[in-house]
Amino acid sequence: MSVCRVIFYPQNKKVTVKKSTSLLDAVSKAHISINNLCGGDGICGRCKMVVKEGEVAAEVSPKLTREEIKNGVVLACMTRVEGDLVIQIPEETLAKEKISADLDAERFKDFEQTILLEEFEPTPLVRKVYLELEPPTLVNNTADHERLCEALCKKIGDCETQMGLKIIKSLPSILRRNKFQVTATVGLRGHVAEIMNVEGGNTADKNYMVIVDMGTTTVVAHLVDAISLKTIDAKACFNSQGIYGREVTRRMIHAERRGSGELQKLIIRDINRLITTLANANGINLKDITAVVCAGNPAMGHFLLGLPTPNIRRYPYVANTVHPPPLRAAQVGIEINPRALLYSLPGISAWVGSDITAGILATKIHERDDITLLVDIGTNGETVIGSKEWIVAASASAGPALEGASVACGMRAARGAVESVYIEDGEIKYSTIGNGTPKGICGSGIIDIVSVLLKKNIIDRSGLFIESSSDRIMSENGLKRFILVPEDKEKNLKPVYITESDIENVITAKAAIFAAIKILTMRLDLNFEDIERVYLAGAFGKRIDIDNAITIGLIPSIPKIKIQFVGNTSIRGAKIVAFYQQAFYKIAEIRNSTTYYDLMGADDYVEEFKKALFLPHTDIEQFQPIK
Amino acid sequence: MSVCRVIFYPQNKKVTVKKSTSLLDAVSKAHISINNLCGGDGICGRCKMVVKEGEVAAEVSPKLTREEIKNGVVLACMTRVEGDLVIQIPEETLAKEKISADLDAERFKDFEQTILLEEFEPTPLVRKVYLELEPPTLVNNTADHERLCEALCKKIGDCETQMGLKIIKSLPSILRRNKFQVTATVGLRGHVAEIMNVEGGNTADKNYMVIVDMGTTTVVAHLVDAISLKTIDAKACFNSQGIYGREVTRRMIHAERRGSGELQKLIIRDINRLITTLANANGINLKDITAVVCAGNPAMGHFLLGLPTPNIRRYPYVANTVHPPPLRAAQVGIEINPRALLYSLPGISAWVGSDITAGILATKIHERDDITLLVDIGTNGETVIGSKEWIVAASASAGPALEGASVACGMRAARGAVESVYIEDGEIKYSTIGNGTPKGICGSGIIDIVSVLLKKNIIDRSGLFIESSSDRIMSENGLKRFILVPEDKEKNLKPVYITESDIENVITAKAAIFAAIKILTMRLDLNFEDIERVYLAGAFGKRIDIDNAITIGLIPSIPKIKIQFVGNTSIRGAKIVAFYQQAFYKIAEIRNSTTYYDLMGADDYVEEFKKALFLPHTDIEQFQPIK
Repeated sequence: MSVCRVIFYPQNKKVTVKKSTSLLDAVSKAHISINNLCGGDGICGRCKMVVKEGEVAAEVSPKLTREEIKNGVVLACMTRVEGDLVIQIPEETLAKEKISADLDAERFKDFEQTILLEEFEPTPLVRKVYLELEPPTLVNNTADHERLCEALCKKIGDCETQMGLKIIKSLPSILRRNKFQVTATVGLRGHVAEIMNVEGGNTADKNYMVIVDMGTTTVVAHLVDAISLKTIDAKACFNSQGIYGREVTRRMIHAERRGSGELQKLIIRDINRLITTLANANGINLKDITAVVCAGNPAMGHFLLGLPTPNIRRYPYVANTVHPPPLRAAQVGIEINPRALLYSLPGISAWVGSDITAGILATKIHERDDITLLVDIGTNGETVIGSKEWIVAASASAGPALEGASVACGMRAARGAVESVYIEDGEIKYSTIGNGTPKGICGSGIIDIVSVLLKKNIIDRSGLFIESSSDRIMSENGLKRFILVPEDKEKNLKPVYITESDIENVITAKAAIFAAIKILTMRLDLNFEDIERVYLAGAFGKRIDIDNAITIGLIPSIPKIKIQFVGNTSIRGAKIVAFYQQAFYKIAEIRNSTTYYDLMGADDYVEEFKKALFLPHTDIEQFQPIK
Repeated sequence: MSVCRVIFYPQNKKVTVKKSTSLLDAVSKAHISINNLCGGDGICGRCKMVVKEGEVAAEVSPKLTREEIKNGVVLACMTRVEGDLVIQIPEETLAKEKISADLDAERFKDFEQTILLEEFEPTPLVRKVYLELEPPTLVNNTADHERLCEALCKKIGDCETQMGLKIIKSLPSILRRNKFQVTATVGLRGHVAEIMNVEGGNTADKNYMVIVDMGTTTVVAHLVDAISLKTIDAKACFNSQGIYGREVTRRMIHAERRGSGELQKLIIRDINRLITTLANANGINLKDITAVVCAGNPAMGHFLLGLPTPNIRRYPYVANTVHPPPLRAAQVGIEINPRALLYSLPGISAWVGSDITAGILATKIHERDDITLLVDIGTNGETVIGSKEWIVAASASAGPALEGASVACGMRAARGAVESVYIEDGEIKYSTIGNGTPKGICGSGIIDIVSVLLKKNIIDRSGLFIESSSDRIMSENGLKRFILVPEDKEKNLKPVYITESDIENVITAKAAIFAAIKILTMRLDLNFEDIERVYLAGAFGKRIDIDNAITIGLIPSIPKIKIQFVGNTSIRGAKIVAFYQQAFYKIAEIRNSTTYYDLMGADDYVEEFKKALFLPHTDIEQFQPIK
């Protein structure tokens, strides 16, 4: 098998691959993030690259113009490496922002700095406990292992302990070298306290955890202090698995062909990069991070652990596990303290994951007498309706448009992202994050712009541009776009715009979510009026304009006072579990008492989805405020 | 560092060692078992070998005659390899019997074939449970992991389960390939049920365990059927660690110098050889052995797991652990099912181990209203006195004489071992195991012969031969011996005899044990009359002559009706734990409620020991029956 060397510019990164490897795999191997969306099926046409030197076998794609083909442009996913190559990656192909620039998660951390619950005693899943053991005497010559366990249980309350052979073996020396004054790191495994580590002296003041929300499109990580229960910092990035498909289904197909190892490596790499960035930025030693608590949809949960996914996407849709045991984080390649634990929170079914159980926990649906609707806006839009009597959850495939992906100028909420679009004095105005030079549009801006275009009659109810309605509608390659920020070469401003195709993606996304809400309320024999409270969740930074969300028909027209944007409830719920062992048991109860409703099995889901493919909806009666 | 090749005859085994390695280490590396007792300190003089070719650096030892030195005889422990060697090992140096010939443990297994306790439901520590899971449907699409755990808990009763990532990962494929009919192997870890293995079909009819008693001198293994709770077979061997010292203290010193790895390897090798022999002899596949349950003294327990022992032998005598967690047996090198568990039972202190907690469990001392004395005769003689109100345990260093070691013609209870010596028609007679040609004397025979010699006035109360008392007293190299079986070259009979030095070793052993009993009763303010029941335990096969044990003063003169020989209670207790999970919790309670009494800290122990260095005792008043 011959081997080829591929050099990528402008990164100047070299990789060696086997002949006939796809160029997409070579890019992945080079750790270069690109905007690819379709997962390597030649559909999205966004993995364009220029072959500067060397031989490739490239399929012809309708996504390329003749001019591009002449200039050596190929789609990486449809090109095989046949010899040593020099490849130029155009700027538009590259993923637009880096982790270090992401402000979304960071802004969100202000949402709630410290989580202090009155009902529970703070008991982090992994604790550091300083112990001053009584040195042994002839009268008290209890063995080292039992001496430590007894002292620990006395300090943290009645517990069953567990300790690995290696730690037991190290005790005689550690205890005596440190005059029997040591710090035990104690992690919860089921109802057993694992003494994961014992070190000399008092190191109990340094104990950090990382809370991760693994979205299909976005991975968010919060660094928290397990002693003060404060959030120190937060970062987010696009999920690198996007290279193998923007929907989890495509990624699962990829995993079935090639094993789930590749997808696992990518999510672990993302998590490691987020953790390293967070630790470096805050002067925290990776060895002081003792736990990672992860929530996410079931497919992501499976990829994280390298579990097989074929039965998730096939009838009758069965997960490998919805509640994996705590593992050594190092076992899956997470680079923190080598003894640290990785907690995967429990999910509900093959299609409703731990991000939702965490969301239920965070919003306390399971404690309330009246009915709450929780809508988690993500690539999978999950809908939960319930009270303390019963909870039902469903999942709809919305696509990533509302997260700023699959939109031409979409970006994550970094500096310069248009986060808000509004009408002032009859004019369409916008504001950017950090008042930066506008570079693209993030999720909240996308909802706003579609709403504003509708209100200003620039698009019609099907999302198409209305001829001559605005002089800012332009056409390029036959595709219409609305220019929000015009190009200005002097100011080095690139244009920021939204295309008809982008708007179609937004409509598809909101229709999938709305139809899910509709079907669920119908099945439960509820009217929208019966819903006492609507929580709108998502990794949207600080804001989402609720009026605009109703305007485009993302959520039903319910009195605004009942609706609240609650941010990333997946992270919040996971944080509560990380800080309170009782919440760890509570979330398992929530998993058991929540019923999964399968929308794919609902005959009328597609019908409701089609009805919602208008702005706000085919049946405008349902949306009083904008009738 | 130059390397030397050493060939041992008659085994024709070759090993390569570094120059300057001791010849004893070379023998160990060649896996040749020898009769060495002192642990390589040049004291016992039993590791004699003949250097046939090659260069050695040998110290001169008073244990060698000039003749021997001229003939190239060296003590292996005091000889360093300086070049390639050819070594002849004399027959008397070799360990006398092989595992396959050992009958002691085998005979003992008849002692109690099946252990059925009325008070507990049979629940082996490792169970195989056949499960016919309901295949998933849209209505019941519980994940594979949770489906299996729920079905299991339903079948075995309420439980918290634990499953490793590798097993979870294998479930989708195993379940579907086997139509959801699988056998789960479930092991107890604390109060959690670990699903250790899941395999297709119904394999629940094959589940075996090995119960091991790790004595300082003797290692006994019983192969048991975890379904019928029957003992299938039993084997024993001398503990190969003997090469590094007959007492655990010497071995601990060795471990401190060179790490506990070497000692661990030897005990694991013994256990593996016993298991392989048992499995082969009974047509059992090693992969169907799912657990090993070990009891033994604390030092052996530490060596088994490779734990450091320095603090056991140093003031204030602290063990690394008295209750190690269950481990994967493969983790320490035990070659059975790779997922099988190794249970080390809980001991009491650095000097009273799990053989004694197992003995208490087996004899039910902890359940009785009246007072029981349990004497476990081994290289460490342990004494337990107690009732359901309180239990006290002590350990005395007796040496291995009563186990047939450190006695010139001593051997384990194999075919041909003199197991009984008695007076008939005024004559000293004997019987051998299996009526075989007499080859040596085992433990019970040693107690008998000393008693008989005393009764016949052939030895005096200090254990010395009485001049002209018998024509069977011979002298060789100035050492007196009593010939039990004379040499008969025609019949190819080697002489079997007992020396004055052997008798001294026996007296030392019994004195250590008697003094322990004495001190403990004194401290508890008891008279021998207060003891309602005496259990005499030990790996002695079927019998020990209680009259003779009293005659030599091994145990106090207590009405014979109160005394019972109960065999190997360590194995029996371990078996009860292996079969009954409730006993697993019970033995942990016994550990907690038993007080260790340190004889070394007792000012009057040495005094009592010295008083007992007579037959039966200095104070003959205490021994009415033979006054």
